[in-house]
Amino acid sequence: MTIRITQQPEIQQFFREAAGLENAGGSERSKAIMLRILQETARIIEDLEITDDEFWAGVSYLNRLGASNEAGLLVAGLGIEHFIDLLADARDEAAGISGGTPRTIEGPLYVAGAPLSQGEARLDDGSEDGVATVMFLDGRVVDLHGKPIAGAIVDLWQADTKGNYSYFDKSQSDYNLRRRIVTDADGRYRARSIVPSGYGCDPAGPTQACLNQLGRHGQRPAHVHFFISAPGFEHLTTQINLSNDDHLWDDFAYATRDGLIGEVRFVDDSTQSAKRNVDGRFAEMTFDFQLRPALSEQATQRSQRPRALQA
Amino acid sequence: MTIRITQQPEIQQFFREAAGLENAGGSERSKAIMLRILQETARIIEDLEITDDEFWAGVSYLNRLGASNEAGLLVAGLGIEHFIDLLADARDEAAGISGGTPRTIEGPLYVAGAPLSQGEARLDDGSEDGVATVMFLDGRVVDLHGKPIAGAIVDLWQADTKGNYSYFDKSQSDYNLRRRIVTDADGRYRARSIVPSGYGCDPAGPTQACLNQLGRHGQRPAHVHFFISAPGFEHLTTQINLSNDDHLWDDFAYATRDGLIGEVRFVDDSTQSAKRNVDGRFAEMTFDFQLRPALSEQATQRSQRPRALQA
Repeated sequence: MTIRITQQPEIQQFFREAAGLENAGGSERSKAIMLRILQETARIIEDLEITDDEFWAGVSYLNRLGASNEAGLLVAGLGIEHFIDLLADARDEAAGISGGTPRTIEGPLYVAGAPLSQGEARLDDGSEDGVATVMFLDGRVVDLHGKPIAGAIVDLWQADTKGNYSYFDKSQSDYNLRRRIVTDADGRYRARSIVPSGYGCDPAGPTQACLNQLGRHGQRPAHVHFFISAPGFEHLTTQINLSNDDHLWDDFAYATRDGLIGEVRFVDDSTQSAKRNVDGRFAEMTFDFQLRPALSEQATQRSQRPRALQA
Repeated sequence: MTIRITQQPEIQQFFREAAGLENAGGSERSKAIMLRILQETARIIEDLEITDDEFWAGVSYLNRLGASNEAGLLVAGLGIEHFIDLLADARDEAAGISGGTPRTIEGPLYVAGAPLSQGEARLDDGSEDGVATVMFLDGRVVDLHGKPIAGAIVDLWQADTKGNYSYFDKSQSDYNLRRRIVTDADGRYRARSIVPSGYGCDPAGPTQACLNQLGRHGQRPAHVHFFISAPGFEHLTTQINLSNDDHLWDDFAYATRDGLIGEVRFVDDSTQSAKRNVDGRFAEMTFDFQLRPALSEQATQRSQRPRALQA
């Protein structure tokens, strides 16, 4: 028989005290959130008859998770970050807000302060020349009526051919494959980059350890991340996931969504290559972003999520 | 209006997939636990309308928590470790198991492998001579009928006069204030130690940061931790909390319990001091432990909680 005590008034009172509800100081919001977390944690422990060994393995796991700075990766891998997008979609729908390019998860690997350029930029530092396939990426940022948005900031970041991101991969140069491009009068951005490889969780890290327990892999399709912002428009956090990747619809972070598939065209034409000033085969991908009008100043901003900043 | 989507079949199915329920590999138990964690986490997010900023502050907090190795301290401070004791008590009661010295929390500061001695030990390394008050601690380990248990292992650990524990406080010698004492034929253990000070959370650490949000302090009364074990008896994890401490019933970790108060007697008598081979004032504390018969081999063992081991 499963023994339950959380319904007892003295246990509920104990959680109120532990959550600080009886204290004058602190934050009322934090207390309300903590009370609920305590109640649900205790219910999980009693309902599932969590053993002492299981509980302490979980606590130890939290220490390893944080020591590896992987909490952001884990919430992506467990689908919680995607759930937050789905909930935001549902809220939009209930508020009658629709249209525009879909949002999808940011992931934990953004670095603030990438170099800013007008209209176009080369993203890679050339260190994978001859190894990587050059990729030309372009498109327009438009409003819901298809009207170009000039001066929008296209802040994009992607992995290299090994699936690694600069800053987190210390072997890469500062801000490699990270740029901010201001759209031109036609709302257009142009980038010369390389075809990224899909990201995979560190096989020795705590996120993959958790996924292993769930019988799951930790692979993502190749993709390019975007923040798109412009005055008067809703900030958009999204990604283009590359159509040619085997993991396109088998993404451990559930970031692939309809409307966010980038069609990669490979070009094997020496005339084209010469015109593009590239040796041999290259790729092209065009992707337009459609922004919704912002209903508040806050909606024009990305979340205050703590993010890395290159030293 | 609060928008809720977790009740939708496709969202429930999404959680099943994220928890690995559709996959052959991994652990079925881990999947069941993860499914429940995902469901409740999502419900908390939608019910309390957790903002993106709040969610990401929480994720960032988990990284800081683990990086500081404080997850074990936090679950003590939030009362979850005490809740687990209360649940174990309720299970015992339902099973008709009663009597003996109450259990209470272990806390995160045990170190395995302390020196073992027969009958008695000095716990402190003398480095606080002249600063600390010497404390003589003694008592017996007995069964539910009061019959002495010879050969029981009394594994005890405590803080110094600054409230710090060896191993975690690198300024202390190896295993300072940590010993294992085997009870004599009369079930008796004797220790020469020092009066500990109460422990306080690192004011700059993540546990205290959380407690601040809840308007709570992070102080414990002075106490001595015990593991008591003997073949055929239930393993006991407990503490003696010192009667003279202002925080005795205002313990941030909720470890103080009826039946676990140690009465400290201070002796200002030069004849007694001379007899005890001590300079000046000293303290005495007597505490007997009563063990319950073990109903299984497993009950004789402490949990497999990952614990520190002195290098």
